Amino acid sequence: MYEGVVADLIEELGRLPGVGPKSAQRIAFHLLQADADDVQRLADALTQVKARVRFCDVCGNVAEEERCRVCRDPRRDGSVICVVEEPRDVVAIERTREFRGTYHVLGGAISPIDGVGPDDLRIRQLMGRLASGEVTELILATDPNLEGEATATYLARLVRPMGLRVTRLASGLPVGGDLEYADEVTLGRAFEGRRLIDV
Amino acid sequence: MYEGVVADLIEELGRLPGVGPKSAQRIAFHLLQADADDVQRLADALTQVKARVRFCDVCGNVAEEERCRVCRDPRRDGSVICVVEEPRDVVAIERTREFRGTYHVLGGAISPIDGVGPDDLRIRQLMGRLASGEVTELILATDPNLEGEATATYLARLVRPMGLRVTRLASGLPVGGDLEYADEVTLGRAFEGRRLIDV
Repeated sequence: MYEGVVADLIEELGRLPGVGPKSAQRIAFHLLQADADDVQRLADALTQVKARVRFCDVCGNVAEEERCRVCRDPRRDGSVICVVEEPRDVVAIERTREFRGTYHVLGGAISPIDGVGPDDLRIRQLMGRLASGEVTELILATDPNLEGEATATYLARLVRPMGLRVTRLASGLPVGGDLEYADEVTLGRAFEGRRLIDV
Repeated sequence: MYEGVVADLIEELGRLPGVGPKSAQRIAFHLLQADADDVQRLADALTQVKARVRFCDVCGNVAEEERCRVCRDPRRDGSVICVVEEPRDVVAIERTREFRGTYHVLGGAISPIDGVGPDDLRIRQLMGRLASGEVTELILATDPNLEGEATATYLARLVRPMGLRVTRLASGLPVGGDLEYADEVTLGRAFEGRRLIDV
């Protein structure tokens, strides 16, 4: 139905996450009419990102050098490690400007259904970092879902003999949300984790 | 917050229609972890599409040669021209397999607010095709919105002296839709255009 190269582009665009056949077609026709320079910039950005981006030797985060921006920063507190599943979780936490420690990116979560076991994650590298004895707190910030919880529990048990402080991010009602729209599990967690108000 | 090339890619992806900042980030991280060959194929498809795709000399549709696939096809009926706004409208109509005539792609619709007048559309080229005298019917298939209707009315008046049959696609209830969810304009059009049932 399309000329060859347009069909190719629609097919490639349709492989991207969240881009269905309709969006792929819409994007392709947009690009057909766009400035050739703009399209070339996108093509170059794609090539560059694969050529230049690597993963941090220390924490597994996205990096352009041996170590990522956080691990290179001498102002970050190396005694606290926040364990996350993916590089985009690092971005989300950095955006809060609340955390001044370092990260460890696992590259996923334990999920027997998807065939992901502990050996498929960067857990060995995490244990290596903990072995130095410098780390005093490990914050488990894996996703608040089945796989994330399983991974957090696994890690908590694994590092228990090392005697460091192991914490998990709080679950509860999203700020700005409506109590009546919260699912029952979240609401249950919010009750469990209720705190005394200091007045 | 991101390393340079990742930020560049997110920015370029975010310019695509229907891709917001969140989707751009999601796609970028997907590509970071994707196979380098897959990403290169997408980059190549982008470069190729700008290098090889042009617009049909006759109808303005997307083409890889001087004339598009439809205009090259000798089985298509050149006496009927269906006027559409964009190449993607051609694809939508081709998908119905109902139409065996040819197309004329205007490249938009008359829209004073956006500064698009008749001279910005491929209307002169359309008049050139009609001048040959071979065309017997002009189907105005511009969008059923304000700009599309204005464009259809403009064209209908313009070609009236040529004495050919000028038609407009029917408006009415979408097939498979729910009557109660139809907006009042569509429902009004469906009443206006009601047809006798042959039994």
